[in-house]
Parts: sequence; structure tokens; C-alpha cells
Amino acid sequence: MNSLFEVHPWKVIQKGFDANLQLAAESIFSIGNGVFGQRANFEEQYSGITHQGSYVGGVYYPDKTKVGWWKNGYPEFFAKVLNSTNWIGIDIEIDGLLLDLNKLEIIDFYRELDMRNGILYRKVVLQLPGGRKVEVSSKRFCSMAREEVAALSFGIKPINFSAPITLKPYLQGEVYNSDSNYDELFWERVSEDASKQSGQVITRTKKTGFALAVSMRYQWLIQGKAAAIESQPESTAMYAANTFTANMEQGKTYELQKFVSVVSTMHHEEAKLPHLANQRVAEAQADGFEALEQEHERAWADIWREADIEIEGDDRAQQGIRFNIFQLYQTYTGKHANLNIGPKGFTGEKYGGATYWDTEAYCIPFYLKTADKRIARQLLRYRFEQLDRAIENAQKLGFTNGAALYPMVTMNGEECHNEWEITFEEIHRNGAMVYALYNYVRHTGDTDYLREFGLPVIYAVAKFWAQRFNYSERRKKYVMLGVTGPNEYENNVNNNWYTSYLAKWCLEYASECFEKWGAGMEQYAPTADEVVQWRALASQVYLPQLEESRVFLQQDGFIDKELKSVMELSESDRPINQKWSWDRILRSVYIKQADVLQGIYLFEDHFDRETIQANYAFYEPFTVHESSLSPCVHSILASYLNRMDEAYTFYLRTSRLDLDDYNREVYQGLHITSMAGTVMSVIEGFGGVRITESGMTLRPVIPNAWSSCRFPVRFMEQPLHVTVDSQGCRVDHHGTEAIEMQVYGEKVKLMPGDSEFYNRMG
Amino acid sequence: MNSLFEVHPWKVIQKGFDANLQLAAESIFSIGNGVFGQRANFEEQYSGITHQGSYVGGVYYPDKTKVGWWKNGYPEFFAKVLNSTNWIGIDIEIDGLLLDLNKLEIIDFYRELDMRNGILYRKVVLQLPGGRKVEVSSKRFCSMAREEVAALSFGIKPINFSAPITLKPYLQGEVYNSDSNYDELFWERVSEDASKQSGQVITRTKKTGFALAVSMRYQWLIQGKAAAIESQPESTAMYAANTFTANMEQGKTYELQKFVSVVSTMHHEEAKLPHLANQRVAEAQADGFEALEQEHERAWADIWREADIEIEGDDRAQQGIRFNIFQLYQTYTGKHANLNIGPKGFTGEKYGGATYWDTEAYCIPFYLKTADKRIARQLLRYRFEQLDRAIENAQKLGFTNGAALYPMVTMNGEECHNEWEITFEEIHRNGAMVYALYNYVRHTGDTDYLREFGLPVIYAVAKFWAQRFNYSERRKKYVMLGVTGPNEYENNVNNNWYTSYLAKWCLEYASECFEKWGAGMEQYAPTADEVVQWRALASQVYLPQLEESRVFLQQDGFIDKELKSVMELSESDRPINQKWSWDRILRSVYIKQADVLQGIYLFEDHFDRETIQANYAFYEPFTVHESSLSPCVHSILASYLNRMDEAYTFYLRTSRLDLDDYNREVYQGLHITSMAGTVMSVIEGFGGVRITESGMTLRPVIPNAWSSCRFPVRFMEQPLHVTVDSQGCRVDHHGTEAIEMQVYGEKVKLMPGDSEFYNRMG
Repeated sequence: MNSLFEVHPWKVIQKGFDANLQLAAESIFSIGNGVFGQRANFEEQYSGITHQGSYVGGVYYPDKTKVGWWKNGYPEFFAKVLNSTNWIGIDIEIDGLLLDLNKLEIIDFYRELDMRNGILYRKVVLQLPGGRKVEVSSKRFCSMAREEVAALSFGIKPINFSAPITLKPYLQGEVYNSDSNYDELFWERVSEDASKQSGQVITRTKKTGFALAVSMRYQWLIQGKAAAIESQPESTAMYAANTFTANMEQGKTYELQKFVSVVSTMHHEEAKLPHLANQRVAEAQADGFEALEQEHERAWADIWREADIEIEGDDRAQQGIRFNIFQLYQTYTGKHANLNIGPKGFTGEKYGGATYWDTEAYCIPFYLKTADKRIARQLLRYRFEQLDRAIENAQKLGFTNGAALYPMVTMNGEECHNEWEITFEEIHRNGAMVYALYNYVRHTGDTDYLREFGLPVIYAVAKFWAQRFNYSERRKKYVMLGVTGPNEYENNVNNNWYTSYLAKWCLEYASECFEKWGAGMEQYAPTADEVVQWRALASQVYLPQLEESRVFLQQDGFIDKELKSVMELSESDRPINQKWSWDRILRSVYIKQADVLQGIYLFEDHFDRETIQANYAFYEPFTVHESSLSPCVHSILASYLNRMDEAYTFYLRTSRLDLDDYNREVYQGLHITSMAGTVMSVIEGFGGVRITESGMTLRPVIPNAWSSCRFPVRFMEQPLHVTVDSQGCRVDHHGTEAIEMQVYGEKVKLMPGDSEFYNRMG
Repeated sequence: MNSLFEVHPWKVIQKGFDANLQLAAESIFSIGNGVFGQRANFEEQYSGITHQGSYVGGVYYPDKTKVGWWKNGYPEFFAKVLNSTNWIGIDIEIDGLLLDLNKLEIIDFYRELDMRNGILYRKVVLQLPGGRKVEVSSKRFCSMAREEVAALSFGIKPINFSAPITLKPYLQGEVYNSDSNYDELFWERVSEDASKQSGQVITRTKKTGFALAVSMRYQWLIQGKAAAIESQPESTAMYAANTFTANMEQGKTYELQKFVSVVSTMHHEEAKLPHLANQRVAEAQADGFEALEQEHERAWADIWREADIEIEGDDRAQQGIRFNIFQLYQTYTGKHANLNIGPKGFTGEKYGGATYWDTEAYCIPFYLKTADKRIARQLLRYRFEQLDRAIENAQKLGFTNGAALYPMVTMNGEECHNEWEITFEEIHRNGAMVYALYNYVRHTGDTDYLREFGLPVIYAVAKFWAQRFNYSERRKKYVMLGVTGPNEYENNVNNNWYTSYLAKWCLEYASECFEKWGAGMEQYAPTADEVVQWRALASQVYLPQLEESRVFLQQDGFIDKELKSVMELSESDRPINQKWSWDRILRSVYIKQADVLQGIYLFEDHFDRETIQANYAFYEPFTVHESSLSPCVHSILASYLNRMDEAYTFYLRTSRLDLDDYNREVYQGLHITSMAGTVMSVIEGFGGVRITESGMTLRPVIPNAWSSCRFPVRFMEQPLHVTVDSQGCRVDHHGTEAIEMQVYGEKVKLMPGDSEFYNRMG
């Protein structure tokens, strides 16, 4: 695979402009701060193919469902994260000529995403008609220190000429989603305002009534010195702008700083927005660009201090892992329980920026190991807050008595998705909610959260599973019919091993939790009979297994397929999801994402090494990894099984999925949630970190290509760093309490401040 | 169940108007002639809820597919039969007041569908403001004698007043389909013309370019005598009309006869349409209404002479069966191989008037038993003509080497449907094509057709099945994974017994055919190896069966379901397809249409009575009959098993499905194709007629409610009538050649003209 852009340990760099790469670059170079985000569109007008995208977390619109054949139970709406007010825009004319990179000759083009500091740079030299050359540069960031502020600096330098120039910074609130089902505008006008110093546009979403206020202010610098330039404010419906006109002198740099605030009813009352947006932006301007930039960089430094992974000797791997960590923290910082992590974050519209089980299965483990527990807790809290909706959702599907089914795709707790085989049948997501709670407690020991906010979820999900199994007289077992597992290349199957195993475990875990803590509870206390019933059911769950083997069968009948490995597939058939009709994919043995292995990954401590080995050996050859969530799990299991070359191959694939654009779909946005899995493939894969109910173990081995790797891990709120090389590993304890763990099979105890080296060979 | 309208052996009668029944009545009282058809809309304007529908067989538009989540292989278009030029319309004003039954007081309302003569009557007495009373009557038919002509007579009689009146007969070509996906007009304007004597509108479908010319002419009668009334012609885009104005005198009847021709490029070159339409209508007018009516009634008499079923002692049953036969012949008369039978015929838009496997499974057997073989042959020919498209369709799904998959839904041979579980997986339809050929030969002995037009279809379908099975190493059998059977309440199952059994039989039948006749063929001759392979495969097909039982399992895993009978379902849960989410339906045991029983019905001679009994007893309790194609099969099997009460219940349900509106969906149109199954439930069910390779057998028994029943049957081109009563049956031989058969188990031989009574007790 070739990289789309240049490799650098801390940066993504694009040298030279390629219009065909613009959509992909807009995704890759996206910036955000966990509350809002922005694709790497140009500030100035661009008439080439582009997807202007600016997104505010949690602000959604229920787009009317589009479906060919309606099925009972389908939701009427698909909640979409909204493309919202464009705040980067600056129209530029030099001597009456509109600046447009699609129409002018580009002599030099440089774009850089500085991941260490969270800043997007661009520098372009253009040739204008008549041999005039001009340099254009820009720099922008969404402040990690002030979550409702962004700042951009736009510079122009006429290299060999002088000429009049106009710069018109604007806010444009009339913005359409590219994925709108019926080409509707989702926003309505509230107000707009423009003065010589500032502009403001307030819009409101139709139906959902989210209000969004965006304000801007300006600062001019000529040759780096503050300057005043005359301007002409204007405002029209959903639009505010200010036109600055000046005579630009040869060789001098003219810099417009645009300060922006983005304030919404996700976090404030609507009545306060106009003032608040103006106040935020006024403060930002008063503090100045440099101060904003510095505090933003300090915020990133704080994140990197704990979360960074350093890989020596392999810049592609290094760039890949930092890109993943960077994008995750750009998307979610854990400050709000009403936000979550869309599969594309703020980088595109497909999948609607909505919440999937990806959060529980991939992102929570990531935050648990790289950050304070409050981030994971906010994500757990998000689901707790939506429990009532999950109960309503289950009712729609015929479940009773407070059983809950969390939605497959949601913004506000209501189901959005409308493929029956997914919406109604990919119910394993419900187990992920409980597993995340369990995992949270294993990592943090925080049973207080579990008791207060976890048990209601665990109870309602257990009730769902208890109703969802049915007893098979023939098998004398409980079976689960008509489900779709994480391997979405099988639909409506019976006894998907992953789903049944997870459901069985949920019932056991619920029993255990309520036996331990149920006594004090009222509203959410199951009866003793209910717990007995859960245990009885769980003990009789049918789990398909390959005869005379340790291999768990993905589902009933899997073994009747034609068992041809992926190696036997011709290149022209791949990816099969683009080349084959759906029925052919379904009846083939090929696996999008091996869910038996996913289950083994989640419950590794339930299985012996031979079983894990047997299942990996059986399923990996059939797996086409056409889910971005797939390779990381294989990388972790391959590391566990000491198949280091495979582990490394999967690692590169997962960590550079977007940078190398494996699936030719980066133009739609980045695969944010799978990035969390990538980080796990370092910490749990190469790092060999396991945090189970028995404690933490560490068994790091690194790929041959690396000379060393330093990664973070947190256990019982103690932040550690592990530095691995070919000889062994050093553990640095940055926490405040003594901690015990096993390293390479030996029990060790570390005190705060300790930095111990453990030899791999014992 | 209550009838929507009055019961009468030859008529459907509506007395009194109910606006809530108007949509249903428009369906029930539809008229057609196999080439075009018309819902029972009013001629005059009606501002209440109505669905104006006029359909021309075979004229379709490829509406852009609407789908939420695209799957590879989906067709881009859904071919829809088009709502086309409204030819019945007459605007009426009495003294400036628009005649509109939704706005005037209705004193008396009478509507009658005369099934014997194929004529729709209506007589209404209205109260106008100021105590004026007017009688309005109409009568219309689509000529069975001239397939491109219709005629209507519209009468007005002012009972207690005199007043000026205007009548404006018109043709309106700007007509929309109610099921248009994107609210597009499917027609474009070609030309229109209006003179004092006539009018014409020519329109053309977008994309498909079907042209349709509709012409009209008029004749006035006052008190039954030809009269001339001054008129004012007008034409605008897609519209032609003539406004007649007269002073209407109290007590006199004013009758406007509107003659219409409907001519399309389905049967003529476009250049000839304008002239042809005018010529047809001029001839019709010249011959006069009465002559047209008489020849139309003679044509119906010819149909009824052979096809009628007479039931003595049970008017509801009698009306039901005649309604079915009547609608079938209104929909298809076998004159054209480029027409087929849409599930709703010309009575509505849902299901697009397109061709389904219903034709082969239900309609062909009906026509084989009640009409000359040429009708069935035309239907077979339709599929032969579309073989190339079926091969292309299979290629899209990855099949090679000339394998064919006939589409689930089609107008021109291309697949239209876009639900993956149906489009790609309900492949049993492919077997129905072969079975229909086999059945045709069993009934007619016409192997010439089979050799010339049948073998290519049989060959291409056999190739499909040979590729569609795969070998299961575990079972040492060939399995068929990922299919949907006729029971569409199971999707994407493995080893659907019906599909696998039918496919296995297709391979065996193909082998047999080519062993017999293959020698002379070139293009369509399989190699000897191919035939050997088919036989080998067929002999090793896996067919699921309930252990230690004669019950065939609907599919793998069926027996793991919760086996609750339909009796245990609460009324509030039914119909489950309206009350339950799709996943709940799928994992439940409930069956839309029992496909194991369907298979047993097709291949009854393969199974012994105990096996049939066991399967009927097993599946019937789980069957909710939410397919209109379901009850007839159960009725036939119940008759076979001598469960006469059940057979009668199912018979009433199937024969009066629309008249009693069991499924509350008659407003959408009638269930035309299932009507053929209804007729079979008399001939094969109560009549006990079996036509197999061993010949014809007859074992009639009638329900207690009937005193006698007379039904037709054809065998080896010999038309017979069988009259059954409680004692036995009389067979009348109306053919030209001696014929042998078994009656009540005894071998008999009948000569032309014979009329023999056979005692049931031997």
C-alpha cells in the first residue's frame, strides 16, 4: 500500500496539489476538539470537487426514512449529524480576480497537519495572469482549551506586484447535508448580524429545534503588526460577512485573523446563545491568536503526555498510531455525557455521526487504557441516559416488562437504522452495553458507578436476553434464532456463537451483580426467581461447536458452506462487498469480521490457548476484513499466539487504514471508531496487556521492524508507561499508589515513581 | 366474514352508497378484456377518495428504484404498469351545478357487475338543491370481441324539473401512478385532436417509448332515439374534450354513448396508431352500441360455456367462484405472448401489474383445465422469449455458462424487485418455469412445444441449479444455502425443503428430457457429462426431515422454534405482518404460506397418503395464510385427506378473499393470480381431478353445503364437464376423441358425446 501523503512521525504532509485527492485530503486533514470539527476545506472559494463540512457534536436532524419496502418496526426517521454553519470561509479577490485553486496555476502547494499541536497549516504559491505571483498561507485550529472557540489566520503576500485586494470573511448558515434523503435544507433562519468588528449567524434545526450561534471577529496584521483596514459589513438570510479592501504592496504579508465561536443548545439555553457566542469570540480576540494557540498546544501536550505511543525504527507505524490517537481525541474528549463518537467523527456525513456499538466495543477500552476514567464514564453515562428509549425500542419489537434493546444507530436514543437484518437482528450490541460496564469496573475498580448507573442497564438488558432466547425441545437447550452477528456477511442466522455467548454471559453477570448488590435496590431489583431463571437459562444456552474440535461454529450450518479460503479468491472478486451480489456473499464462507474471534477477544480468559489457536486458525483464512473493525482484533490475537509477522501486517493495515486509504473510501471521512481498536492492537496486542478480574498482566513483544515502543496503560486509576524493546520492557509508574501486576508471567509490585526493567527471557 | 356487497350467483351488487367503500368497490367492480382494463371509477367528477385507474397490459415505465440501503445486484428500475389515459371521463353540469356524488345528496344508488355479460351498470338518483331530482345511469364494458374497443352509455333523466345541461366527455392523458417513487409523470405528450365528432389523445411513456392512442366518438339518444346535440370541441396538452349543451326536459332520458378505442405500440407500429385508433372507434360507432354489446356478450358466453363452475345450494360459494373465473378472463385471454398476468391485473397498481411466479404456479394450471391449450402455451412462450434476460440476470449474480435465473418480478424479462431476501434468494421461481412446462405436457401431450421452446428453458434452469447447490463435506450431500422459500416469513434459510426438492426434480426432469430428445439439438444440448452430473447431484441433495417422522422440515433449524399453533395467537396479534416487527415474524414458527405443503401439492404423486397426512397435520396449525396464495393449497390437500369441513372453510376464504375483503386491502386491487388457485380448489380439491404422467383420475366429493357442483376439466385437449352431487358424478365428454381415465378408482373410457354417471360408492 502507498501512503496518500508523506510519512512523518508527528505530521501528515501534502506537497503538491492533486485535485483528485482533495476529498480524501479534506478528510485526513480534518480538525476538531471533541465538540465541533471541520473538514480540511479551503477558506477561499474552490470550484473543484470538494465536500464542505462543518459539524457540531450532537446536533442532529431526523431525516425522513428512505426505504424501498417498509417493514413493521422501522423508524420513521434517520437522525443525521448536521453539516452546519461554514465558519472558515473567506472570499478573496486580488485586483478583481477571484482566488480559486481550481482555476489558477499552482506553483507550490504545502499542507500540513501538525498532530502534536493540533494545527492545520497550508502554504500555496500561485501564478496569476500576467506573471504575478502570490503566496497564500493559512493556519487554523479548533481550540482544545476553549471548546467553543476556533481561530484561523489567513495570510497573503504579493511576491512581485502590488494590487488592490479584498478579503471577505463570512459565516454561511445555509448549508446542506450531502446525505439528505430528500434534498431538504435541515436548518431554518433565526437571525444574523454584521458590524465592522464582528458577525453572527444564528440558525435552528427544523423539527429538533437545536439552535446554533456562530460569531466571528477579526484582527489584521501587516508584516506581523496589528493594523486597521476599512471594512463593509453585510448580512443576508443565514449569512454575515465583512468586506475588507486594501492596496496590497509587493513583498508585504497581509494577515487576517478570524476568531470564531460555535455555541449551541447542546450545552446552553437558546436565549443565551446570541450573547454567549459574542462573548466567547470577544474574549478570544482580546486574548489574541498567539495566546489561544499556546493554550491549545498545551492542552494537546497534556493529552499526548499520557496517551502517546512512541514507536522507534518505523516511521509509517509511528505516524499511523499517532494519527489514530489524534483523531480519537479530536472527536471525543469526555467532557459531555450527551456527546458520543460517530464512526466518522466530524470528518464526513456517512453513518450520520451517530452512535454505534463501536463506542462500547472499541472506544471505551481505548479511553480506559489511555485516560482518566471520567472519559469512559461519560460514554457509559450516555447509554444510561438513553435507557428509557431502549426500553421503548424493545417494546416496539414485542418485548415486555422493561426489557431494553439499545438501538443499532442513534443520536437521541431512538433507533435510526432501517435494514431489518441489522435494525432488528444485530442485537449483540445490547451485550456490548453490559460488557462495557464490566470492563470499566475491571479497569477502574469503580463499583460505585456500576451500582448507581450500571445496574439499571444490566437489568433491562438481561430481561431482553431472557425473552429473546427460546427453548428448543429438540436440543433441550435455549437457542437464539434469527440474529445477525458482528459478521454482517451473515444475516438472520440461528445461534450466532458470538451473540449467544455474550447473551449468556450477560445473564450470568447480571445474576452475579444482583446477588452482590441487588439487596439495596428497589426500582431495578430483579426478584430472586428472576435471577434463578437467568442462571438456569444461561446454563442451558446452546452454543454451536464443530464436532470433535475446539472450534466454535459461527452459527448453525456454517460448516455446510464451501470452505474455500480467501487465498483462493481472485483479486477481481475483491472487495466482495463491491463485486458480489448480497446472496453470494451471504452463502459464501467469507467473513467481514470474524465474530467468533471477537468473542474470544472479549472473553479471552475463558478459553485456553489451544482453543484460541484452533479458532484463529479456522477463521482467519475465511476473513476478508472488509470491516474497519476487523484487523485490530486479528492483530491482537496474532500477537497473543506469537504470530508476530501476521500481527504486524494487521497492525499496519488497521493503523494506516485511512492514511493509506485501503478501502478507497477516505473521501467520505475517516474511520474514527476503528482507530480505538488500532491503539488496542499496540497496548493489548504487542504490549500483551490484559486487565481482567484477576488483575493486570503484561507480556510485551514487539515486531522485528521496531527497535522500541513506548505505550501507556492505566490500571486502577494508576497511569503507567511501558517501553518495550527486543530484550524486554521497562514499566514507569506515574501514579500515586502501589500497584501489583504480572510481567512476563512473574508477579511484581511497583511503587509510584518506579521505573523497572523486566527481561523478556525471565 | 361479511360480504362487502350483495350475494347473487351471477352478479355483484351494491345498493346504497358508502364513500368509505368506494376504493374497494372500484377494485371489485373493475372491468377489462385481457388487453386493457379499468377500475370502477365514476365517469363524472368525484371529489371524494378515489383511485382513478386505467391500465393497458404490457405498457410499463421503469421507475427509478427507491431503496434505503443499496445492495450490489439490485436493479436500477422497477417496471410499473402505467395508469394511462382516462377514457371514461364525462364532466356534467346541470344548470351550472357540477355533478359530484361526494357533494350531492344521494337518494338511491345501485351498482352492478354483471359477470355473465361482463358489463358494469350504475343507477343513481340524486337530490339537487331546490328539491330537483335527477336520475343518472351508466353502463360500460371493455369489449371481449374487439380487444381495442370499449363503450359506455351515460344517461341522465331530470325527474321533476327541466334545465340546461352540459356534458363534456373527455380523454385525459396526464395521469399519474399512485405508486410513483418520485412523483414523476411517466407520460409525455405526443398529440391531441378534437372535432365535433371525435377526440384523440396520443401519449408516449418516457424512457420506454410505448405510445398509446385513445380515440373517442359520441352518439346521442333522447328517449332512446338518435339525436344531434351541438358541441364545442377543445383540446389542450394531453387532453381532448367536447362540450355538449342542451336544454333537458323533465322526464326525458338523455343518453350519451361514448365509443372508445385504446391502441398501443404493444401490438402496432407507432406510425399507424393515430389512424388505427380513429378507424377502430369509427367502426365501433358505425356498428352501434347494441351490436357491440351483443358481440361482447357472445364472447363471454363462449368463455363461460367451457370455464363456468356451477354450484347449487350455496350462493356465496357460487358468486365467489364465478367472480374468480370472471376476473381471470378479464385479465388474460391468451391472445398475446407479450402479455402476462399481474397479481392485481388491471385493478390496481401495487405489485406493478408485473409478472410473478404466480403465473406458472397458479394461472397456467387454471387455463390448462378450463381452456384451449393455446392460452397456457402463450404464457409459457412469454418466458421463453425472456430467456436471454434470465441468463443476464443470473450472470449479475455470479452464475456462468448460460445458467438462467428468471426474475421475481418483471415486465420485460429484467428483474425489478429490490429486497435482497426476495430478489436474490426467492429462487424457487426458477423451478416453477420448468414445472409449468412439465405440467403443460402432462395435460396436453404437446411435446412439440416442449422440444422447440421448452428445452432451452429447462437447460438454462438446470445449469442454474447445478451451480447453486454446494457440496457439504460434513453431510456428504449437496446443500442449498441462503434461500427464501414461498413462505416469505422465513428469509435467507438453508435447505428450504421446497426449493431443494423442486431443484432436485428440475435436474432429474432435465436429464430425462435431454436423454429423450437431446440428440437432435445443437445449441441447447448438454453434454453427456453434464447430464450425468445432474443425475449424480440430484441423487445426493440434502432434504431436511423431522427425525423419526414422515414430516419434511421446512428448512434447517425449523424444529428449534417455539412450536405454538396459530390457535394460541391472540386476535390482537393478527395479521402478524401488520402487528409484529419483521424479526419476530421470522423467528416465530408462523407460516405465511406453507411451502412444504406447496411442494407436496405439486408432487403429490411422489408421496404416500400417510406422508401427506403427516405434513398437513404438522404445518397447517402453524400457517397464518397471510398470502393470498395459501388457502387454496390447503383446501385441495384437505379435500384429498377427506377433511371436508376444513376444505370448505379454506375454499370460502380463497374464493371470497376479495368479495369479503379478508385482508382489508381490496382498495389496492384484487388478488387476480390467487383466483386461479381458487378454481383449482374446486377442480382438484372437491373435484379430485389429478392429471399426472400416468393419466387422469377423478375422485369428486363435494362439501355438505352444496347440493351439486358442475366444473370443467380438459385432458389431452378433450373438454369435459363433471357434475358432482352427494351420490357421485356425471362426466360429459364434449370433445372429439375417446378418452380414458380413472373415476373413483375405476378405469373408464369415454367416447365423444358420452355422459356417464359414476356412483361414489362404486
